[in-house]
Amino acid sequence: MTVLRTLHHFALDPASRQVRLALGEKRLPFVELLERYWEPRAGFLELNPSGVTPVLVETNDDARLVICESRAILEHLEQASPEPDLLGRDPAERAETRRLQQWFDRKFDFEVNSLLLHEKMEKRLFSLGAPDLANLRAGREALRTHMGYMEGLLQDRDWLNGHRLSLADFAGAAHLSVIDYFGDVPWTDFPSVRTWYTKLKSRPCFRPLLADRWPGLAPASHYDDLDF
Amino acid sequence: MTVLRTLHHFALDPASRQVRLALGEKRLPFVELLERYWEPRAGFLELNPSGVTPVLVETNDDARLVICESRAILEHLEQASPEPDLLGRDPAERAETRRLQQWFDRKFDFEVNSLLLHEKMEKRLFSLGAPDLANLRAGREALRTHMGYMEGLLQDRDWLNGHRLSLADFAGAAHLSVIDYFGDVPWTDFPSVRTWYTKLKSRPCFRPLLADRWPGLAPASHYDDLDF
Repeated sequence: MTVLRTLHHFALDPASRQVRLALGEKRLPFVELLERYWEPRAGFLELNPSGVTPVLVETNDDARLVICESRAILEHLEQASPEPDLLGRDPAERAETRRLQQWFDRKFDFEVNSLLLHEKMEKRLFSLGAPDLANLRAGREALRTHMGYMEGLLQDRDWLNGHRLSLADFAGAAHLSVIDYFGDVPWTDFPSVRTWYTKLKSRPCFRPLLADRWPGLAPASHYDDLDF
Repeated sequence: MTVLRTLHHFALDPASRQVRLALGEKRLPFVELLERYWEPRAGFLELNPSGVTPVLVETNDDARLVICESRAILEHLEQASPEPDLLGRDPAERAETRRLQQWFDRKFDFEVNSLLLHEKMEKRLFSLGAPDLANLRAGREALRTHMGYMEGLLQDRDWLNGHRLSLADFAGAAHLSVIDYFGDVPWTDFPSVRTWYTKLKSRPCFRPLLADRWPGLAPASHYDDLDF
């Protein structure tokens, strides 16, 4: 039975990027539909009343399945298409993957994105005026704290979750990659994070993200450079 | 093999309450350890570096499993103790359960709790002074919007997810129950939500929540009344 997948997403949304990476890693083909989450279409709100990206729609001959938002989509993909496994092979690995997903989607999102991405990206998308320099500074400071935490983990681990690539890496890389689009990641001060990101950036699943461009928002010059 | 469970939680934390409800519904015994998340102990930060409650520790003869934060714990419990099922029997039910979990844990949390619970609860716990009346008003207004959404769902559905009790109900009830502790839920204006909450409040898994008291914070008089 052929499943047709449509992913409603926004190119520079970290949650959407996690799903694109997982779909790519599992070699599941999908059609993309770009949604401007800050002015959601009525048709998109019918799919997800919260208006949040991403939403995955799977259709086959006799059914249509709508799955809203990244955690639900990622858990679904692990059950429906378990190879390669991206969650973890035992309860401890799965707990660590999900702990780190939550870390990035809540703590990092709140402490870094709500300042840095809001000032650099959302203010331009929403036409809210010039960035606030104090917020930018606070966001960059919080980013350094988070990268310090990642650096500590990655000095002992090949991947964030331990020894194998997982959704925890995709969560971290999705967030950092959007900030990197705007040139704000201090790579040179965190060599283990940089090495880890280089490995991820070289994977085929990462290529579509490196090709993303948004009108009026040019990426940093090194953004798609594998040797940054 | 006997598994000993310890739940590190805070009594008035909606995320912790979801896990207590799920453990109760699945009749899984556990020991409780109260954590003051606003001044985390070093020992708690070793379990969860983000300092966020809840954390579940499972130990048996030869292993110790630490599971941090509500989504990871709830997904783990569904895999480890699948009866009764609280996630959903097919991909569509599971997607709807997880959509609503995300709705409460992100959207409701951001739009209601960050105003209403912050002003009524956190300001007293953290000794931050008197509540800001404009924030309280905005939080109450957002709460009405969310309850209107729930009312619409519950006019067509027995439970939030459709026809069966699920983690979506526990997510909604956990959030509302904490706000209800402070007497701020306008039950009379949302009769279907009230009927749904009455059903939940009568379940054995809910009893420990109704017995919660925090020093210096008295609950509303109807808080533990099954006929409110």
